[in-house]
Amino acid sequence: MPNTFEGTDFITIRDKTREELEIVMDKARQMEQYRNVGTDSARGHLMGTLFFEPSTRTRISFQAAMKRLGGDTVGFPSPEGSSVQKGETLADTLRTVSQYVDILVLRHPSEGSAKLAAELLDIPVMNGGDGSANHPTQTLLDLYTIRKELGKIDGKTITLAGDLRYSRTTRSLARALTRFDVELILNSPEQLKMKEDLLVELEEKGLSPKETNDLESSTAEADLIYATRIQKERFPDISEYKKVAHAYEIDKDLLEKNGEPLLLHPLPRVNEINTDVDDMDNTVFFNQAGNGVPVRMALISLLLDLPGR
Amino acid sequence: MPNTFEGTDFITIRDKTREELEIVMDKARQMEQYRNVGTDSARGHLMGTLFFEPSTRTRISFQAAMKRLGGDTVGFPSPEGSSVQKGETLADTLRTVSQYVDILVLRHPSEGSAKLAAELLDIPVMNGGDGSANHPTQTLLDLYTIRKELGKIDGKTITLAGDLRYSRTTRSLARALTRFDVELILNSPEQLKMKEDLLVELEEKGLSPKETNDLESSTAEADLIYATRIQKERFPDISEYKKVAHAYEIDKDLLEKNGEPLLLHPLPRVNEINTDVDDMDNTVFFNQAGNGVPVRMALISLLLDLPGR
Amino acid sequence: MPNTFEGTDFITIRDKTREELEIVMDKARQMEQYRNVGTDSARGHLMGTLFFEPSTRTRISFQAAMKRLGGDTVGFPSPEGSSVQKGETLADTLRTVSQYVDILVLRHPSEGSAKLAAELLDIPVMNGGDGSANHPTQTLLDLYTIRKELGKIDGKTITLAGDLRYSRTTRSLARALTRFDVELILNSPEQLKMKEDLLVELEEKGLSPKETNDLESSTAEADLIYATRIQKERFPDISEYKKVAHAYEIDKDLLEKNGEPLLLHPLPRVNEINTDVDDMDNTVFFNQAGNGVPVRMALISLLLDLPGR
Repeated sequence: MPNTFEGTDFITIRDKTREELEIVMDKARQMEQYRNVGTDSARGHLMGTLFFEPSTRTRISFQAAMKRLGGDTVGFPSPEGSSVQKGETLADTLRTVSQYVDILVLRHPSEGSAKLAAELLDIPVMNGGDGSANHPTQTLLDLYTIRKELGKIDGKTITLAGDLRYSRTTRSLARALTRFDVELILNSPEQLKMKEDLLVELEEKGLSPKETNDLESSTAEADLIYATRIQKERFPDISEYKKVAHAYEIDKDLLEKNGEPLLLHPLPRVNEINTDVDDMDNTVFFNQAGNGVPVRMALISLLLDLPGR
Repeated sequence: MPNTFEGTDFITIRDKTREELEIVMDKARQMEQYRNVGTDSARGHLMGTLFFEPSTRTRISFQAAMKRLGGDTVGFPSPEGSSVQKGETLADTLRTVSQYVDILVLRHPSEGSAKLAAELLDIPVMNGGDGSANHPTQTLLDLYTIRKELGKIDGKTITLAGDLRYSRTTRSLARALTRFDVELILNSPEQLKMKEDLLVELEEKGLSPKETNDLESSTAEADLIYATRIQKERFPDISEYKKVAHAYEIDKDLLEKNGEPLLLHPLPRVNEINTDVDDMDNTVFFNQAGNGVPVRMALISLLLDLPGR
Repeated sequence: MPNTFEGTDFITIRDKTREELEIVMDKARQMEQYRNVGTDSARGHLMGTLFFEPSTRTRISFQAAMKRLGGDTVGFPSPEGSSVQKGETLADTLRTVSQYVDILVLRHPSEGSAKLAAELLDIPVMNGGDGSANHPTQTLLDLYTIRKELGKIDGKTITLAGDLRYSRTTRSLARALTRFDVELILNSPEQLKMKEDLLVELEEKGLSPKETNDLESSTAEADLIYATRIQKERFPDISEYKKVAHAYEIDKDLLEKNGEPLLLHPLPRVNEINTDVDDMDNTVFFNQAGNGVPVRMALISLLLDLPGR
C-alpha cells in the first residue's frame, strides 16, 4: 500500500479521514518498540522546531520523537532567538529555515500560520499549534490514548468537561470524534458551553452530543472523561470564576463514586484535577502526554516516508 | 595534498589566499551530496556554539552543518544562558567550554573577540561574526553562491548595492573579490558610500570599483547584484531615510527592465527587496542562505580534518 | 560484580560510600578514552536537562557527556521555556518530562527538589544543584581531579580557602573528604568560617580540620588549595568586603613563594584568582571543569547500566 502521507503536511485534523487517523495510530503502535531504545530510521535527517510561543510538552516531545528515530533537530524555543526581532517576516524566516531541514514543526500564535507555511514550503510542515485554531498532533495523541487504554474508540461514551468554548483541544477532539461511533457528553458551565457553530457541525456529522452541567452524572455515564482547564481570564468576575472552577474540580471521591472512568487531560492542570487522583489506575494524563512520542514518531515517519525500523 | 586547514582557525577572510578559498568551495561542492541525507564523518565530535548575540541563520546553519556531518553541538543561543551573567570574563568562558568540545563557533559583539579566542584556545575557532569587523563564513557562502549560480567568479560584473559604509557583509565581500578578476560597481546613497580606506585597499589590490548612485544602470550592467539592508538608524532624519530607502528598493520591474541579473542578499531583508521578485529564477537569496550548510560542513571538515565521506 | 548504581538516583554525596565514589572515579578514568572521540553506548537514549536556573558549566558538560556517549538530550536551559510559567507544579513538569526520557538531570533553586524528583520518578535522577544544599557531581569531579592530578587522595593536605560558610561546593567537598585519609585546613575570613554543625560532623567522622585565616601558611602547608569566590552580597559593608577579598586573592607570587601547590576552583572566578597564575603548571581549574565530562559520562553509564564501550 503506498504511503499517501509522504511529502504532505499535517495542519488540521479536519482534512483527515478515519482511515488516515487509523494509519497514524497503527504506525504509532509499531513505534512503541523504539520509544525507549531508539532506532536509526531518521539518521542524517533534521527537523526544524520553530516555536514562536514557548511550550514544554509539545516542543520536547517533538524533539524526543525525532531523536528517538535517530534524527536531530535545530530551531528556536521562543521568538527571542529568531530574526523576527530584526523585522523579518514569518514567510522569510520559514523559507530560510526550510533550506536547512527536511521537515518542520511550527508553533505560532496566529491562526493560519501553519497553513501559510505548508503553502510556502516544499518540505512537510507539521502544525504544533496555531493560535486558537488547531493543534492536530494533540488530538492524534488523545485519540491514540483512548484506543490504547480502552482497546477501541467505537462504542464508548466520552465526556468532555470544563471549558468547551475556548479550549482548542476539546474543540479539536470533538471534531475528530465525528469519525468514530461514540456517545458524546458535553459537560461545562453555562459561560463555557461549546459554540453553536461547532454543535451544528457535530450534529451534521452524526454526533448528537448531550449537554449538561452536572459533573456527577456525566462522570457516571462515561467510559472516559476528558477534562480541561477553566481559565480565570474567561470570567469578568473572580467570584463567578471561583464558583464555577470549584464545581468542576475532579477528585478521587468523585471518580470512586461514579465508576472510575478513564481520566484524560491535555496538561498543564492547575486546580481542576485534585492530586489525590494521581495514584488511581485510570488517571492516565501523564501517560497521555508520553504517548505524544510514539504518535509524533509515527507522523514524522509517514511524512518523510522513513523505513519501518 | 596535505590539508593546511587542519587545526587552524577561521577568523577573517583577509588572511585567506585565493587558493584557500577555492579549497573550501571545492569541499563545499563535495558536501552537497550529504547536505540532505547526512554522513557520519563527525560522529562522536562536538562543536561549541557560543552566541553572545542572537542569530537565526548563522547559528542554525552551523548547527545543521555539524549535525549533517554526524556530529552534535552544545552551547548557548544568547548571553542569558552563560556565566557572563555571573561576572565571568569572555576568556574564562572560552577556556571552560573549550574543555567540552572539539571545535568552536563564536559570535560576539566585540571586534577582535574571535581572534582572542583563537589565540587562547588549542581547538579550532570559527568566527560567527565579531561586531562590525568580520563574518567570514558569510563571505564564503556568498562566494560559493556566485560560483554555483554563475559557473565561475572571474570575468563577472558585480554590483554591491545599499549600505556600503556600515554593512559588514558588503565590506567583507568586496575584500574577498580582490582575489578574483571581476568588475565591481558600488551603488549606494551618498551617506552610505564605502569608506575611503577600503576604497584605497581595493585599488591597491587591483580592483578599481566604479561608484554610482544610479540603481538602474548598475543593475543593467551587472551579472549579479548583492543588495543589503539600509538601516533607519544610520540617518539623523527619518525623511532623509525614507527618500533613500525608496530609491534603493529592488523590485520585479527593475530587474525585468535591466536584464534580470542574479540577485543576492544576506538576509534578513526588510523593505529593500520587494516580495514581487521572489518567484523570479534569478533571485537566489534563500538558496544563498541554504548554501551556508555545505559551506560550513566543508569548513568544519577541513579544520577537524574529517574523512571525506 | 553487579552494578549497584543501575536504576538508582544521584542526589547527594552524603549517602555514597568511599567504595561507590571510587567506582565512579574508576569508570571516569575508563571514559577518558571516549571523551574526545565519542562512543555509541548510549545510542537511542535521551537525557532530560531541566535547568530551572541557568548554568553554563553544569548544563553544557552534562549535555556533552551524554552526547559523547552517543545519546542525546532534550529539555530547557531556564524556567522561561517551561510550563511553570502556566502555573504547573514542579511535580507535574517532572512527571511529564520523565515520559520522554530515560534519565534526568535537574537544577532547581529549592533545596530538596532533586530528592522530590527521585521519589516521584521511576527513571534515574541526577542532582545538578538544588539551592544551597547539594551539587554532588561537582564534588565528584573535584575528587576525580585531585586523584588524577596527585595520583591519590589519601595522605594529602588540602586547604579549602575563601567562603566556607555559604559555598555549596566547599561544604560538599569537605563532607566527601571524610571518606579519605587527609589533612584538612580551613582558611577563611572570620565572617565566612565554616558553620559549627558541619565542623562537628567532620570531627565525628574523624577529620580534625585546622582553622586559620592566614593564606600564606595554609598555602605553604598544602598539597592543594581549593579556592572559592567570596561574594560581595555576604558583607553588610562594602569596605569590609574589599579588605577581605583582597586578603584572599591568590596570585603567582603567593604560589611561587609557597611551594606551588595544586590550585583548584569551581569557577566562575571573579577576582579571587589573579590571571597571572593561569600559565602555571599546577593551576588546573580549567582541566577540573573539563573533568566534568568523563565523570558525568561515568555516572550516566552506571545509572543506565550502559555497555562499557
